[in-house]
Amino acid sequence: MTLSAAIEELNILEKNMHAYRHAMGVLSLDSATCAPAASAPARSETMGVLSEARYRLLVNPRTEEMLRTLREQAAALDVPVRRRVEVLWESYQDTTRIPVREYVDYSRLCAQADAVWHRAKEENDFAAFAPYLEKLVAYNRRFAGYKTGFATPYDALLDDYEKGATTAMLDPYFASLRARLTPLIRAVSEKPAPRTDFLHLRYPLPEQRLFSQRLMALLGLDPARCVIGETEHPFTDGFNRWDVRITTHYQEYDVSASMYSVIHEGGHALYELGMGEDLQFTCLADGASMGIHESQSRFYENLIGRSLPFCKALLPVMRECFPEQMRDVDVPTLYRAVNVSRPSLIRTEADELTYPLHIMIRYELEKRLIAGDMKVAELPEAWNAMYREYLGVEVPDDRQGVLQDTHWSGGAFGYFPSYALGSAYGAQMLARMEQEMDVWGAVERGDLQPVTAWLGEKLHRHGKLFTPAQALQSACGAPFDPDCYADYLTKKYSGLYAL
Amino acid sequence: MTLSAAIEELNILEKNMHAYRHAMGVLSLDSATCAPAASAPARSETMGVLSEARYRLLVNPRTEEMLRTLREQAAALDVPVRRRVEVLWESYQDTTRIPVREYVDYSRLCAQADAVWHRAKEENDFAAFAPYLEKLVAYNRRFAGYKTGFATPYDALLDDYEKGATTAMLDPYFASLRARLTPLIRAVSEKPAPRTDFLHLRYPLPEQRLFSQRLMALLGLDPARCVIGETEHPFTDGFNRWDVRITTHYQEYDVSASMYSVIHEGGHALYELGMGEDLQFTCLADGASMGIHESQSRFYENLIGRSLPFCKALLPVMRECFPEQMRDVDVPTLYRAVNVSRPSLIRTEADELTYPLHIMIRYELEKRLIAGDMKVAELPEAWNAMYREYLGVEVPDDRQGVLQDTHWSGGAFGYFPSYALGSAYGAQMLARMEQEMDVWGAVERGDLQPVTAWLGEKLHRHGKLFTPAQALQSACGAPFDPDCYADYLTKKYSGLYAL
Repeated sequence: MTLSAAIEELNILEKNMHAYRHAMGVLSLDSATCAPAASAPARSETMGVLSEARYRLLVNPRTEEMLRTLREQAAALDVPVRRRVEVLWESYQDTTRIPVREYVDYSRLCAQADAVWHRAKEENDFAAFAPYLEKLVAYNRRFAGYKTGFATPYDALLDDYEKGATTAMLDPYFASLRARLTPLIRAVSEKPAPRTDFLHLRYPLPEQRLFSQRLMALLGLDPARCVIGETEHPFTDGFNRWDVRITTHYQEYDVSASMYSVIHEGGHALYELGMGEDLQFTCLADGASMGIHESQSRFYENLIGRSLPFCKALLPVMRECFPEQMRDVDVPTLYRAVNVSRPSLIRTEADELTYPLHIMIRYELEKRLIAGDMKVAELPEAWNAMYREYLGVEVPDDRQGVLQDTHWSGGAFGYFPSYALGSAYGAQMLARMEQEMDVWGAVERGDLQPVTAWLGEKLHRHGKLFTPAQALQSACGAPFDPDCYADYLTKKYSGLYAL
Repeated sequence: MTLSAAIEELNILEKNMHAYRHAMGVLSLDSATCAPAASAPARSETMGVLSEARYRLLVNPRTEEMLRTLREQAAALDVPVRRRVEVLWESYQDTTRIPVREYVDYSRLCAQADAVWHRAKEENDFAAFAPYLEKLVAYNRRFAGYKTGFATPYDALLDDYEKGATTAMLDPYFASLRARLTPLIRAVSEKPAPRTDFLHLRYPLPEQRLFSQRLMALLGLDPARCVIGETEHPFTDGFNRWDVRITTHYQEYDVSASMYSVIHEGGHALYELGMGEDLQFTCLADGASMGIHESQSRFYENLIGRSLPFCKALLPVMRECFPEQMRDVDVPTLYRAVNVSRPSLIRTEADELTYPLHIMIRYELEKRLIAGDMKVAELPEAWNAMYREYLGVEVPDDRQGVLQDTHWSGGAFGYFPSYALGSAYGAQMLARMEQEMDVWGAVERGDLQPVTAWLGEKLHRHGKLFTPAQALQSACGAPFDPDCYADYLTKKYSGLYAL
């Protein structure tokens, strides 16, 4: 195969793979937003057929020859093409080790499990979800076993979401973070709680929907390329830079739940919308890693979204959307309310300070499940015990406990640490950004464009052209510094609670 | 290839084809309901990739051998399998004559054209849509030419939607229908118009959305298998019997617009939901023809939905949803209002009496376009002239004229006659149903279950196992009788307007 024929084949393969990713993504989105309840089994058949087609696109002698040709002549390739070959080769190797039947059955299982989880959560019925979760864990243990060069099966799964992340690195990171956060959380708990009553008045859903549109405008999300939907669990799916979807979940008596979901998912969306046009229809139109992706969502949600300057820009919008509810609220009151810290049950609604503990709980439980040290049947009790130990809260039911997150139902084990890493990456990016530009002046004016432009230039437009380490180096001018995040939290909460 | 191997391959092929139909259907639905405006070009690439995969599934030596094997041993096959082979063989022959590049480019074009039409309609900009329409016409003329055994290219297209329908049969049918309707329409126009003011009060959209749910319950649509969305142009897409979608379009000052769209699409949905479980994942889980499909939508919309007994069942629901607007409305007033007949601009909102004229206009224009007797550029003027001639109305803009329907943007030329045929089929089914059961007692009680069960038994469950002629014979106990429809309209409108 000649070099130019191989490049031509690479381009065709990537376009085809985009199409299957797109179609399966829209089927998933439709399932979570619109599809009728009884539609799941037939959709899982469709997912099985499409995943088999996708598997066979990648795993076949012709693709292997094409990738080998390009790897042998890597020196002759442009940097982006070389990187595409590297990313695809890895994906080829990971996929080729999985027998096609297992790959397809697993796709079908994920589509079924997602529907079962939705219903189980609604009905607080862990027993209905447990058999699916058992199968999902078993598949993931087997898939982990197919990968080589990892100290533990869980390390192999972590690597899918954050290349290079291992338990050997995360164990001490989480231990030291927990050691720094625990006294801070205790100190905060001894202080009087700020006012939050106004966040829990009645916020009718039609008004919240309009508010979401205002928030999306404030974030600078292009409405021609990004729209919002409603799901049980908020998420973002970027099919390409012209088609990014975010979702939220409204609660009538908690305006901040959806508000911070929109800002969080909006952060993911800005990353997807900002990826270079030259990367589209290639595997590089993707996050550098899930940790880097979560750095963007958590950046907008917390570092920007829960800052005092942002509250200044936000309050007038909230007053317009909710004049009654916000009547006696001023900027400091709003700022303190959206940063109230107290141990709680739901990860996605947790404050910045206690949030990492929610992640550590999932991390510990996943390690045990994937190592085979714990059965799925033991999971709810272990979950509740860890919430008691780490956060001092009693879990009243599985709906607010082990069934709360969507990740496991989609087969994502090893994903959760991305949130904690992302939060830490973001803190480090902010420190660098503050040195280079007037972050807070822009935010206070309600103009996030300069912030997004800074991230766009250093991070977004490069997509997966960067490894996570390169992405960090580009955005922070330095390698990962885990202390930066704990320093940021200490400073912020000491100020808020006058510690 | 052995017979049992061929049957096994047939089953696999049909499951795979269901998956692609499902995925492409969901992508289209998403495009019409949720997707951001700028997403169309990338989606059309995805549609191109999927349509090529679908083409290659069907058109390849292995499939041909399988189909030939089964056709040669047709006598050894069960009736449903034999019918599947027959339907697929026809589809194979039609598709194989189209070069794959043309097939794929056409899929891509349709996906683009749909988005362009949406925008053109919104902005009343025919010129923006015209180049796409030109290409669509050219493709359809070429595709018609690939088919053999038709007197004219337009006949070849008609056959796609209604097997056996030809201009030789439709020309005299439409001529005689027009001859019977014209004096009736004139007579009605000389009578005083009934009250319709209350239909045009303000009906806020949130209340209309709740009303749609009530209508769907009244129709007996299973909410676990059928849900509603909102689109510019209402439609139904049944992916399988567990997943049927209908859509509507709300107008704040016209409650009947969406109401009759929901009932119309609900009729399509009942057909799809009623198709036999044994037909699922095969080509027989489909309407016998588009005419038969439209017979069901038009049956519920008009024969049932605009009947006096249905108005009795409907009024209490409308009163609950719209107490203010419906305060001084009684059953006869509602009945007369929803049957007001006057020549109008918009097909989907036309009354039963003038509706066929809207179809005849499209039929005449399509004949000219496909014959090459008229250019796309001449279409708006020809459209407006025909509305003047047939209906005596002046078309104020293309939005309310030639741009109103979605069909051409999706490449459907030859579809419109299905509506007129369907209306006529339905009238004949009703005559038979009235002989066999107490239709109006059930409808008056708001219990459509016996009506749907009757249609389910004779029509719905058989799907495409029946040809259109067989479907008619099963549901009417007789072949097509074109007079039945004109008789029905004459009787109904003579009563309504005391002619």
